[in-house]
Amino acid sequence: MENQVLAQGYRFAGVHSGVKPDPQRLDLALVVSDRPASAAGVFTRNRVLAAPVRVCKERLPSGQARGVVICSGNANACTGQRGLDDAIRMTSLAAQSIGCTPEQMLVCSTGVIGRHLPMAEIENGIRTAADQLESSPAAFTRAAQAILTTDTHIKVSTRTLTVNGQEIRLTGFAKGAAMIGPNMATLLAFVLTDAAVAPATLQALAARTAAQTLNCISVEGHTSTNDTLLLFANGQGPQLEGAALAPFEQAVTVVCSDLARAIAGDAEGATHLIAIQVEGLRNDREAWCVAKAVADSALVKTALFGADPNWGRIVSAAGYAGVAFEESQLSLWLGDTLLYENGMPLPFDNSQVSAWMKNNRELTMRLLFHLGSGQCTFYTCDLSYDYVRINAEYTT
Amino acid sequence: MENQVLAQGYRFAGVHSGVKPDPQRLDLALVVSDRPASAAGVFTRNRVLAAPVRVCKERLPSGQARGVVICSGNANACTGQRGLDDAIRMTSLAAQSIGCTPEQMLVCSTGVIGRHLPMAEIENGIRTAADQLESSPAAFTRAAQAILTTDTHIKVSTRTLTVNGQEIRLTGFAKGAAMIGPNMATLLAFVLTDAAVAPATLQALAARTAAQTLNCISVEGHTSTNDTLLLFANGQGPQLEGAALAPFEQAVTVVCSDLARAIAGDAEGATHLIAIQVEGLRNDREAWCVAKAVADSALVKTALFGADPNWGRIVSAAGYAGVAFEESQLSLWLGDTLLYENGMPLPFDNSQVSAWMKNNRELTMRLLFHLGSGQCTFYTCDLSYDYVRINAEYTT
Repeated sequence: MENQVLAQGYRFAGVHSGVKPDPQRLDLALVVSDRPASAAGVFTRNRVLAAPVRVCKERLPSGQARGVVICSGNANACTGQRGLDDAIRMTSLAAQSIGCTPEQMLVCSTGVIGRHLPMAEIENGIRTAADQLESSPAAFTRAAQAILTTDTHIKVSTRTLTVNGQEIRLTGFAKGAAMIGPNMATLLAFVLTDAAVAPATLQALAARTAAQTLNCISVEGHTSTNDTLLLFANGQGPQLEGAALAPFEQAVTVVCSDLARAIAGDAEGATHLIAIQVEGLRNDREAWCVAKAVADSALVKTALFGADPNWGRIVSAAGYAGVAFEESQLSLWLGDTLLYENGMPLPFDNSQVSAWMKNNRELTMRLLFHLGSGQCTFYTCDLSYDYVRINAEYTT
Repeated sequence: MENQVLAQGYRFAGVHSGVKPDPQRLDLALVVSDRPASAAGVFTRNRVLAAPVRVCKERLPSGQARGVVICSGNANACTGQRGLDDAIRMTSLAAQSIGCTPEQMLVCSTGVIGRHLPMAEIENGIRTAADQLESSPAAFTRAAQAILTTDTHIKVSTRTLTVNGQEIRLTGFAKGAAMIGPNMATLLAFVLTDAAVAPATLQALAARTAAQTLNCISVEGHTSTNDTLLLFANGQGPQLEGAALAPFEQAVTVVCSDLARAIAGDAEGATHLIAIQVEGLRNDREAWCVAKAVADSALVKTALFGADPNWGRIVSAAGYAGVAFEESQLSLWLGDTLLYENGMPLPFDNSQVSAWMKNNRELTMRLLFHLGSGQCTFYTCDLSYDYVRINAEYTT
C-alpha cells in the first residue's frame, strides 16, 4: 500500500451506497480524470453481455473520456432494457456531478447476475462519491476496495517509468474472486496513466496486453458476463508515440500481469497460487490451450489443494486441450522435481514433493514439449472446501 | 439387481487380485463369450491414451472377440512401453486361461494414472478369475463390482427385446465416479448381446450410441485417458440385419443412457443428478455445446449443491459455450419454474425453488432457444465438499 504511485490528474472515491447490505462495505467507486483522456477497453467474449459492458463497448475507444463509475454487489447482467437504462443512468448521474457529458463517462458493475440495480441507493452513492473525489492514496485505496466482491484484499499495481527524460506513472487496480475464465479480460481491471497516447494506439495495446496477462488466469474457467479492462491515458504527462511506446507497453503489461497474479492468488477459497509454464509447442496459442486445460481441471485443482503430486491428472488434462502431441514429446516438472520425462514416469519421493506443496503457497509446474518455441505462463489456484462453501451459499 | 437379464453365451468373474490394497475389494473382472463375437469400441479422444486403450483400438472392430479382462485401481496410463507390454500380457494370460489367441481378448484398466501395474498380482488374479467364470447373476454382479473405483454402487442396465419373434438380450455395465468429461465415451462401459451383428455395423452403432448417451454426461469435464465403451454381439441369438437393426439400436441406446445417468448420479461426492435439457438451437451439436458448458461450470455445480437458484450462472455459462445467440432468444426453467423469459428475469419465490432443489435428488433445468430444432439432454451432478475431499486425498 505504501508504495502506491498515483498517475497525475486523476481523482478517486469509494463509498457505501447500499448495493451491498452490510453498511461497513464499500460498494461504489468513482474515478475521474481532470482532463479528457484517451480510453480503451477489452471486454468479455461471453455472448451474454452485462448492461455496463454494452455501454462501454459503444463508447470506446475514445479520446474524450472523463472517468468511470463502478458498483459492486450487483452485476447488472441479464436485466434486459431496464438494466441498460440503469447503466446509462449511472453514467448520466456521474457526468452531471463532475460536469461532463454522459458519453464521456464509462460504467462497470460486478456481483450477482439477474437482479435489477437499487437505483435510489446508487444515485445517492454517486452524489456522495462525487463530493469525496480526491487524488490521495487513501481515496484511491477506498476506490480499490469499493469494487471488490468476495475478494479478501485489494489488487493494486503501480509503476513509474521514464521516457525521453520525462516521468510516466501507471496506476492499476482490479477485482477478481470467481467466475474467472477470462476471454478476453477479467472482471474489472483498470489502468490509469498520465501519459498521452492516441485512442486507437491505446486500444491495440490494451488487446495485446490482456491476451498476455488477464487472459492467462483462471479460477474455474467460467467466463463472466462482466469482464472488463479499461485503460485511461489523460495526457497530463508526456506524449507517447513511435519508439517511446515500447517501454510504456512493457510497463502496462507488468502492471496487468501483477493484477492477474493477484486475482488468481486471491481466488475464492484458494490456498495456493499456481504458475503453469508451458513451453515448446508450435505457437503461443497452443501453449495457452494446454495451460488453460490444466488450469481449469477440477481434478488438478483438488490434487493441488490436497498437496498430492498426482501428475497423471496434469498430463491427462494436457491431452484433452485440443493440441496434437505424442506422450513421448512431453516432460513435466512440479517445482524442481522432474516427474515425467518424454512420456515415461520417473521414480520420485512422493512425501518430499507433497511437503513442498504443503509448505509453499506459490507453486510452479512446467510442461515441456519439443515441437516449437510457443510458450505461455498461466496462473490458477486450487479448489478447496471454501470455494464450494462460498459458492454454495453465495446468494442465499 | 433382481431383474438383471444376462445375454446368453457369456460368463463372468470378479476377484480381488491385489491392485487395490483392501482385500475386501474386488479389482479384476473377466468377461468371456463362449463363441467368437463381433466386438466394437468407442474410446477417449484424449491425446494421452492409456495402454489398454491402445491395445483395444488396434484390435477393434473384430468378428472374433472372445472377451475382455479389466483391472480397477490402476489406469495403466502414462506408463510408456512397459505399460503397453503389461496390457498385452494381460490379454495373453486371459487368452491362455480360456483357450483363445491373445488378439481375441481385449483389456481395460481404470484408477490412478502413472503407475506400473503389479503384474504378479494381476497374473494370479486372471488365473483365479478364469477358474470362477460363470453365467450366473452373482458372477455378473461380482464382475460389475470389480471394475469400480470410487463409485458407491454398481451400474447395470439390461433389456430384452423381440425381433422377428426371437428374443434378444442386452446386458450393460459401467463404472464412472470422476474424471468424467467423455469424448467420446466414458470410463469403462460394456454392453453384451446374444444377437448376431456384423462387426462394421456394430462399430457404427457404437459410435452413434455413445454420442447420444455416454458423451452427454460430465462430472467435472476432465476427459480421461481410459474412456472405453465396448460392445459385444456373440450371435448366440438371432442375426440382425436391415430393418431389424433399428429396434436393436434403440435398445442399446436405452441401456447406454441408463448407464450414463447412473454414472452422473453416482459421481464423486454428488448429492444431485441434474438433467440439462437444451432445445431450439440450430442443430444438436450446438445444443450439446451449451449443455456441456453449463454442466462443466463449477459455479453452476456449487449453486446446485447449495440449493441456490442462482440462474445467472446458468445463463452466463451458456453465453461462453461458443454458440451464437442473443439474450432475448433464451428462456430458462428450473424444474417447473420459469425464471428467465426471452432475456428478461422474472420474479419468483426463491425459497420455494430452493426447497424444491433441497428436497429432490434429481433436478431438471431447461434452456429454450428459438433458433431451430437442435436439442440435447445432458446429465451432470453437483460439486460438493465430498468431491473436494475425495480428490484432494485420492492417492495420498
